[in-house]
Amino acid sequence: MSSNATRRMSIGDFLLRRLEEAGIQHLFGVPGDYNLTLLQQLYDTGTLKWIGTTGELTASYAADGYARLSGLGALLVTNGVGALSAINGVGGSYSEHVPVICISGSIPLRSIDRGLGMHHTMADGTFDHFLDAYAPVTVAQTRLTPRNAATEIDRLILTAWREKLPVYMELPSDIAYLDIEVPAGPLVLAEPPSDPERLHSCIAAIAKRLSAATSPAILVDADADRFGVAPELMELAERIQAPLAVVNAAKAVIDETFPQYIGIYGGKASEPQVRETIESSDCLLSIGYRPIEVTTGDFSASLPADTIHVRGHSVDVGNDNYQAVTLKEVLRAVIDAVSPVVSRARRRVAAAVAGTEVDGGSAKLKQAAYWQAIQNYLQPGDVLYVDNGTSFVLLGLKLPQNCTFIGSINWGSIGYSVGALLGALTAAPHRRHLLFLGDGSFQVTAQELSTILRHDHKPVIFLINNGGYTIERGYLGRTETYNDVANWSYADLPKVFRPDTTARSFVVKTSGDLQKALSAPNDTMIFVESIMDSQDAPAMVIASSNKGAELDYGPRGPHRRDNAQLRPAASS
Amino acid sequence: MSSNATRRMSIGDFLLRRLEEAGIQHLFGVPGDYNLTLLQQLYDTGTLKWIGTTGELTASYAADGYARLSGLGALLVTNGVGALSAINGVGGSYSEHVPVICISGSIPLRSIDRGLGMHHTMADGTFDHFLDAYAPVTVAQTRLTPRNAATEIDRLILTAWREKLPVYMELPSDIAYLDIEVPAGPLVLAEPPSDPERLHSCIAAIAKRLSAATSPAILVDADADRFGVAPELMELAERIQAPLAVVNAAKAVIDETFPQYIGIYGGKASEPQVRETIESSDCLLSIGYRPIEVTTGDFSASLPADTIHVRGHSVDVGNDNYQAVTLKEVLRAVIDAVSPVVSRARRRVAAAVAGTEVDGGSAKLKQAAYWQAIQNYLQPGDVLYVDNGTSFVLLGLKLPQNCTFIGSINWGSIGYSVGALLGALTAAPHRRHLLFLGDGSFQVTAQELSTILRHDHKPVIFLINNGGYTIERGYLGRTETYNDVANWSYADLPKVFRPDTTARSFVVKTSGDLQKALSAPNDTMIFVESIMDSQDAPAMVIASSNKGAELDYGPRGPHRRDNAQLRPAASS
Repeated sequence: MSSNATRRMSIGDFLLRRLEEAGIQHLFGVPGDYNLTLLQQLYDTGTLKWIGTTGELTASYAADGYARLSGLGALLVTNGVGALSAINGVGGSYSEHVPVICISGSIPLRSIDRGLGMHHTMADGTFDHFLDAYAPVTVAQTRLTPRNAATEIDRLILTAWREKLPVYMELPSDIAYLDIEVPAGPLVLAEPPSDPERLHSCIAAIAKRLSAATSPAILVDADADRFGVAPELMELAERIQAPLAVVNAAKAVIDETFPQYIGIYGGKASEPQVRETIESSDCLLSIGYRPIEVTTGDFSASLPADTIHVRGHSVDVGNDNYQAVTLKEVLRAVIDAVSPVVSRARRRVAAAVAGTEVDGGSAKLKQAAYWQAIQNYLQPGDVLYVDNGTSFVLLGLKLPQNCTFIGSINWGSIGYSVGALLGALTAAPHRRHLLFLGDGSFQVTAQELSTILRHDHKPVIFLINNGGYTIERGYLGRTETYNDVANWSYADLPKVFRPDTTARSFVVKTSGDLQKALSAPNDTMIFVESIMDSQDAPAMVIASSNKGAELDYGPRGPHRRDNAQLRPAASS
Repeated sequence: MSSNATRRMSIGDFLLRRLEEAGIQHLFGVPGDYNLTLLQQLYDTGTLKWIGTTGELTASYAADGYARLSGLGALLVTNGVGALSAINGVGGSYSEHVPVICISGSIPLRSIDRGLGMHHTMADGTFDHFLDAYAPVTVAQTRLTPRNAATEIDRLILTAWREKLPVYMELPSDIAYLDIEVPAGPLVLAEPPSDPERLHSCIAAIAKRLSAATSPAILVDADADRFGVAPELMELAERIQAPLAVVNAAKAVIDETFPQYIGIYGGKASEPQVRETIESSDCLLSIGYRPIEVTTGDFSASLPADTIHVRGHSVDVGNDNYQAVTLKEVLRAVIDAVSPVVSRARRRVAAAVAGTEVDGGSAKLKQAAYWQAIQNYLQPGDVLYVDNGTSFVLLGLKLPQNCTFIGSINWGSIGYSVGALLGALTAAPHRRHLLFLGDGSFQVTAQELSTILRHDHKPVIFLINNGGYTIERGYLGRTETYNDVANWSYADLPKVFRPDTTARSFVVKTSGDLQKALSAPNDTMIFVESIMDSQDAPAMVIASSNKGAELDYGPRGPHRRDNAQLRPAASS
């Protein structure tokens, strides 16, 4: 069969086939009248498995979490109401560089052609509003038609995969069952090969710098994960005996037990030896580095001026910018081009909270003891989720081998982790999944717990009940009620969402209670609600919030008043 | 003090002052580091009352529900994550013509000026993404600066109020506390007066048609509510003895006990006498009419070709289009211009489910008996909420005097009603509020119940637990599991969300159970979970879904297969 061979297939079936060929096995979303045709095709063909969620926002989070573990994720929503409910999650995928295909079952072409007012629209005679709304938060958008579907479906899936960014596709409800000519061969997810000359010149420039260096180092951002080059980075680091640090958005991308791994770099927020290693390197190789206040210690990061910046599809070395080169090819070729280094002074591995004996007593549980106990609970292979709040302490824990860390570090959308948990559980049901979040975050997306229970998943959920948005109290409103949330009986929720659940719920008030919860077997969902003080925040969270307030509000802000902020002294 | 007098005031205080002057007393939303400065000003000045919600989507629904009862609503979100989480609700306000001010506490100007990567952004060097995303779903957008704040705040509030559409405003976190020169006088919400000549000519043309007519009639859409002209319409109808119908999006805008009121018009979906009255009128006056498939019986509505279309700010009479006239002035002047009509053949008032004796037995509860009982439960002055699903039957009930009906009829976003309930309860806490929704809708926004409980509101919540999206089963997937949802212990939620609640929960399986629930006193929240069959759908919902499928999927759709849809015969 030639590569130009075609066959006839319905548009919906072709879309599902392409998603499957791209490695997607599950589709998240909410049914709606405009997307039922594709859903029926999904059921009839058995291509993908449908994971209905309680709402579209969590569907978008789930697709994002799924993509982080399996390389690509997808969700199906309905026109307008569904698309706009999902847009925050899809925008988060853009911010976090996660490839997600957002498919909106949209109003029929027959209505667009005739200019009809339809429900789930603005009913104002214009039909492009949701394509327009999605333009700022996706790398490509399209409305499928019988003329363009065969090419547009491939363009969007391939663009998402290559750019590691989300795309948005409208499938009008009346064309899913129309047959068109489509390629007979499978969709191949592949990068275009690098330009030979550009690649050669680029490698030569990097290898020359690295070979001449006495203190080379590597700084890794999240794109190293998205482009799947952690193995190459570790191989390179080992070969040239270079220390390797990550920014916090790339936590656990490099195995933290790897000998060359030195910790998290974030300017003044880093351990001193990590900071010195990165900032004084005479040949720093950065991978996908994006300076953001939350990943740079509020811009206190200061990379050497001659840092080599390697990105997904381009490289900066010296005054040159190399295009048409791909990250993996660059790294593979650099590994081959540099001579192995037998020994270099070994850097000290970053300190961590780890290892201390845990208090098992009856005193009121505090954040410090809590995270100490969590450190000891971690196991190799765990998937860890952080939501925004005091759970950021997780960034400072030392993770065992083969752990995966999932968080919305740059985008910072509270509640993300619950949806992401559903998605990543679906992608890797046999790993142990530990979710860490606070009450304020949980309240946004709590109902997705029911979908997790419905599918018999067995995560461990660590919820901190501290009466509200404690992280915000470090910015402003230390004791103001606008930072309070309602006090739910959180631990009762699994039973409400699934009355026949076997989930084990614990309400923890002391270290002793916590130890009991942590000793429960992982054969069902474990839900641990830990009650802590609203004024008890870890030092790193307070420091970050206080600095954030200075940046956010400036010299005229109200955060400098007495008692306006939770400050280090106020913490336990 | 001259009208040009100014005073110095901080930007945040000025914004709050303007909102208060515009009649807004409550602000809904979620705190975030970028909006805490305005929140602090709100607390310090005591201007508005803060109603923190569990998430931004429900905040946008709450602001919409609030605006429907008090004329204008507002919400406060944080940059990016908050703004995009709220955009579906704000888009709904656009679709439904509800004036809402969406304020996003946004990244500081100091970061924009210096091009800094910030959390809650795309960190791609562009800062207008969320203004761009909001452009298709709002009538005006702006980023406030110290230069423009004094004029832009007024422009946006006034535009929202005049157009009855939402607006979007970014308030950078570092300028809320900066002082600027602002007008000393209050903001006056007023329409610009009509152009005298255009108004005069328009009135003359309408009065001439009405005076010559033998069967004049009035058809009312939702804008009659938004522009507050129901009293004028009733006065006019009475004066000329004209029958008055509404489209379903304007349910209860005209008091249903008003003698000239004849019922809901929706083409073939109407009662025959309503249809004939409207379609054969020799002078039909339509108010804000927007033909949408869900309000026109799938475009079977057929207004007379010479219908006079009156809109918020324009009128069509014959071949002329009159601009620079306002709805209320037009109606007032028409009332004065037409002679009273003493008697005209009285139209029969539309039939309703009302009045039948209710079964109180132990047979399994069915939809028909359920709505019969609800009809009898209604009281004058109730605020009724419909969510999308079988609860649409509510449109067919006959409402007592002074009821208000709130629904997302055109936009059709499931879960809207729970947020809208919070908003409208806040605006009118002393009325009785009855929420009608299904399990699928409730699961999207269930947690907002906790905010309703937190503020001691006492609504009655009628939840139908029928295992999923029964309305969709009338489109496609009659028995497919993609239309199923998880089976929660719904009635246990009030106690989880507020452990010390006095709410009364009922699980209803028979008509007898329902009668018991309906006899509970309204002195606390009442939560009635009624368990019904997933295949039991009211005839009007089935008919509408079946027709919708035909329009959505066309002749090639899968809905025509055997057993693909819930059809009338299948229903009880």
